[in-house]
Amino acid sequence: MSNQEKLPAPAGAKPAEARYFTGQAWVKMLAPAGNATACTVGDVLFEPGCRNNWHAHPHGQLLVVTTGTGIYQEKGQPARLLRAGDTVVIAPDVVHWHGATANDWFAHLAINPSANQGAPVWLEPVTEADYQAAQ
Amino acid sequence: MSNQEKLPAPAGAKPAEARYFTGQAWVKMLAPAGNATACTVGDVLFEPGCRNNWHAHPHGQLLVVTTGTGIYQEKGQPARLLRAGDTVVIAPDVVHWHGATANDWFAHLAINPSANQGAPVWLEPVTEADYQAAQ
Repeated sequence: MSNQEKLPAPAGAKPAEARYFTGQAWVKMLAPAGNATACTVGDVLFEPGCRNNWHAHPHGQLLVVTTGTGIYQEKGQPARLLRAGDTVVIAPDVVHWHGATANDWFAHLAINPSANQGAPVWLEPVTEADYQAAQ
Repeated sequence: MSNQEKLPAPAGAKPAEARYFTGQAWVKMLAPAGNATACTVGDVLFEPGCRNNWHAHPHGQLLVVTTGTGIYQEKGQPARLLRAGDTVVIAPDVVHWHGATANDWFAHLAINPSANQGAPVWLEPVTEADYQAAQ
């Protein structure tokens, strides 16, 4: 059950690639691949309970939270609760996941420097036990 | 005269470096220099009429508009009006300026990939005639 009314996906958003997510997320690319800076920016919306798989970025990533309540966790570290305005700096090759809390919608900008120099490395889904422990 | 009530600078924001701006702007660094991605993110607020000088970034820049109405202009190109949700991709070494319109407050995220590999090149202020022509 969500604490919030359903948030609309941003105009032009597409469903995120299901194989990398538990639950439903939507992505609107604000600065798509191939742009002149080689840094992509996506606006990502997660429904309550939705999170991405464990993964890592060869050149790191930055998250800027825009709406709702979310979770960020690095492998072996305590989970971090995220709210609007929070920023996460994810170092290269650090295994992590992010997503909504169980009861709230969540949206962040995902900033990917040097996105032309290596794709994310996707790993296993976050188990329900690990996800519940992170709330 | 502004169309809007004054927007508060974000908590922790500092006045922007006056020598690079006409009017008052404030910057809150969300991801400061020296972070593990080498990509900085700043939240920049401009009062009505405020704009930065002509300048260029050796590795480009991305702007994501969060509030208000602003202007982006590349040298020799028509000005572009900006509103919340708009994104600007600024290619490396392209001379440009950005700022608020004459009557509205304006805020954007400024995303600077490879900020550790070269500072912006700052040039002359935008003249009042050029600024008025861009409204």
